[in-house]
Amino acid sequence: MDAISVIRTKRDRGELTPEQIDWVIDAYTRGEVADEQMSALAMAILLNGMNRTEIARWTAAMIASGERMDFASLSRPTTDKHSTGGVGDKITLPLAPLVAACGAAVPQLSGRGLGHTGGTLDKLESIPGWRAHLSNEEMLSVLDTTGAVICAAGDGLAPADKKLYALRDVTGTVEAIPLIASSIMSKKIAEGTGALVLDVKVGSGAFMKTIEDARELASTMVALGTDSGVRTVALLTDMATPLGLTAGNALEVRESVEVLAGGGPKDVVDLTLALAREMLDAAGLKDADPEKALADGSAMDVWRRMISAQGGDVDAPLPVAREQHVVTAPSTGVLTRLDAYDIGVAAWRLGAGRARKEDPVQAGAGVEMHARPGDTVTAGQPLLTLHTDTPEKFDYALKALPDAYDIAPTGTSFTATPVVRERIA
Amino acid sequence: MDAISVIRTKRDRGELTPEQIDWVIDAYTRGEVADEQMSALAMAILLNGMNRTEIARWTAAMIASGERMDFASLSRPTTDKHSTGGVGDKITLPLAPLVAACGAAVPQLSGRGLGHTGGTLDKLESIPGWRAHLSNEEMLSVLDTTGAVICAAGDGLAPADKKLYALRDVTGTVEAIPLIASSIMSKKIAEGTGALVLDVKVGSGAFMKTIEDARELASTMVALGTDSGVRTVALLTDMATPLGLTAGNALEVRESVEVLAGGGPKDVVDLTLALAREMLDAAGLKDADPEKALADGSAMDVWRRMISAQGGDVDAPLPVAREQHVVTAPSTGVLTRLDAYDIGVAAWRLGAGRARKEDPVQAGAGVEMHARPGDTVTAGQPLLTLHTDTPEKFDYALKALPDAYDIAPTGTSFTATPVVRERIA
Repeated sequence: MDAISVIRTKRDRGELTPEQIDWVIDAYTRGEVADEQMSALAMAILLNGMNRTEIARWTAAMIASGERMDFASLSRPTTDKHSTGGVGDKITLPLAPLVAACGAAVPQLSGRGLGHTGGTLDKLESIPGWRAHLSNEEMLSVLDTTGAVICAAGDGLAPADKKLYALRDVTGTVEAIPLIASSIMSKKIAEGTGALVLDVKVGSGAFMKTIEDARELASTMVALGTDSGVRTVALLTDMATPLGLTAGNALEVRESVEVLAGGGPKDVVDLTLALAREMLDAAGLKDADPEKALADGSAMDVWRRMISAQGGDVDAPLPVAREQHVVTAPSTGVLTRLDAYDIGVAAWRLGAGRARKEDPVQAGAGVEMHARPGDTVTAGQPLLTLHTDTPEKFDYALKALPDAYDIAPTGTSFTATPVVRERIA
Repeated sequence: MDAISVIRTKRDRGELTPEQIDWVIDAYTRGEVADEQMSALAMAILLNGMNRTEIARWTAAMIASGERMDFASLSRPTTDKHSTGGVGDKITLPLAPLVAACGAAVPQLSGRGLGHTGGTLDKLESIPGWRAHLSNEEMLSVLDTTGAVICAAGDGLAPADKKLYALRDVTGTVEAIPLIASSIMSKKIAEGTGALVLDVKVGSGAFMKTIEDARELASTMVALGTDSGVRTVALLTDMATPLGLTAGNALEVRESVEVLAGGGPKDVVDLTLALAREMLDAAGLKDADPEKALADGSAMDVWRRMISAQGGDVDAPLPVAREQHVVTAPSTGVLTRLDAYDIGVAAWRLGAGRARKEDPVQAGAGVEMHARPGDTVTAGQPLLTLHTDTPEKFDYALKALPDAYDIAPTGTSFTATPVVRERIA
């Protein structure tokens, strides 16, 4: 077996054999297959695709490159959620404690933002004292005592995926559905969850810009999970508009706490409840009542215990950016569009995200929105507030925004896109 | 400018801008663009192509990465030949001194074999004492005093191509027409020849298996040369059958000397003369008579001076392999096919070629053929003689040969493919 023959097979539109896939993943993890060989293979996969059999084997080989976790010692059924990433997508924050409050165990291994999308760990790190990195024993202990844990994946989980993900990021090979699906699912299957709900974003602020691509990615992942014994469901959800009224780290924590307190923007509450119902249903807890757990404060109780267990001070004030700049509405009328990608880029440029993995993020930076599509706005009223610690960034952020919204004449009819667009099981 | 945006442009079937091409070639040569980024780009180019404008700019950028040679001080017009590589292709050996004997200067920068194809430098190195590596001054001196020089290209010529060629070789990205064309032409244009004849091989033993691919490669290279002020012509020539009756290093030198002595196999003589006429014509020497220069010994005189000038002992016996194995004809009839690829693989396995750049080759190893397509053969007569210093290699070489030839019943009519199939100017 050699790397060139594997590359040539895929380059010439052939099907990779199980032996080729097992060998190339193992040899790449060991360093025998070089980065320049794997990146050529990744580009061939991006352009020529992989079929379901190849994707399943690729995923299995990445799982086999590392350890598998085991939650069999827990008394509660485990259920997890994964989002493909968007703008303002803080749903994991209220969702994990809410589902735990309803009786499931939620082992939520999360990531950091890259590019215009935010990352759950970056958001939670804006809470003073909170630690993302736990040992496997600490993770199990937080999960056992509070019902939920949100933390970074350990280095032992699917190391082949870690290496390949970093390579794809610098070689223009991120946007390949077979590689995205196998990357997500190898981590989730190795993590050992019993049930999984996938939130596949679609729209300008998402990775998948069209419903067809989102469907393809979702059904690929549902099949991978199901075939590995994980009860897996996917919701295709809207990411043409940002979720909620904030994009940024501390800004999104604040909004998440509002949801846990029974308030918060309607779209965030609706999606949190929709995903909670799916997670509970997949975990076999069909009688659970997540609406009640939000209303009676039990979800908030789990949040406080979960954050405290990882060193976070739940009563400390959240960081606030040193400088603000207000963007006002240029005309009176109906806000018909607020673009998720543009808002995400602006938040990123203000300091909420990072250009390279090793960059720090600003806890207080981001974009606050004062209207949602469908709302009536008046010329001169605040539309967006930009937050940053480094005011020289305002100009660059504003350059992302000239086409970020449309205002139509007063009286124009507007129909909102539902947050949940499709369900794939 | 960054590598990922350049990769994405080509990945998404866009046209690379001149600025993108100049930047990526320069940054790759300097090490700012990493091997894993260039290999992803090479795979995207292989699968999505480049148009003529992109290929011309890519070639110019590779030329600009190094020095350019200048033959303006020579009194004779310069003319050069390049073959895309085949089995038994020893044509450069008789051709360079022949064209020099007719009044042109032939600066023949050559390469080594890789895979099943032979390399001119490997062949000449079987002559005791002969040196492939000359300084630019030595090269010019041999060319000035003898009229021809065959040597390795210096490190200063198109260094971007050297780096990219080595990368393509290990990443399954060799077979891309835009990259093959720009690789060949960047070296030839930087070398500074005034005229160039391209011998584009087509058939099982060549890189281009179909006449359509060979045409595309040839016309791309002719356009590149012409646009750079080099008078360029291409012949598409047959490589379904090996050239001549030998494939191997010393074996091919022996056959080349036979041609220079006025003998040798008809196909080798015919192609040598056809290419000589094109080279002389392109150099403006329309009255030259290469047939006469072969017959009167003047080409042989140049050969002897040229080899001697590079340290070669023209009167020393050529190396002979220690062991021989004869393959006999299994039946009586007409030999209708002798496969260039299979013969090339057998010669390579016997030790005539190398699997990796740093491997040594055996001077005496190779395959001697005792019949050509169209010849009548008798059951039991010698068909092939295999030569090697390492007899344990016979078995592996024989495994390449079961389907290497067809013998049809006596009386079957046979029409030979002409050696020169098409001309593109």
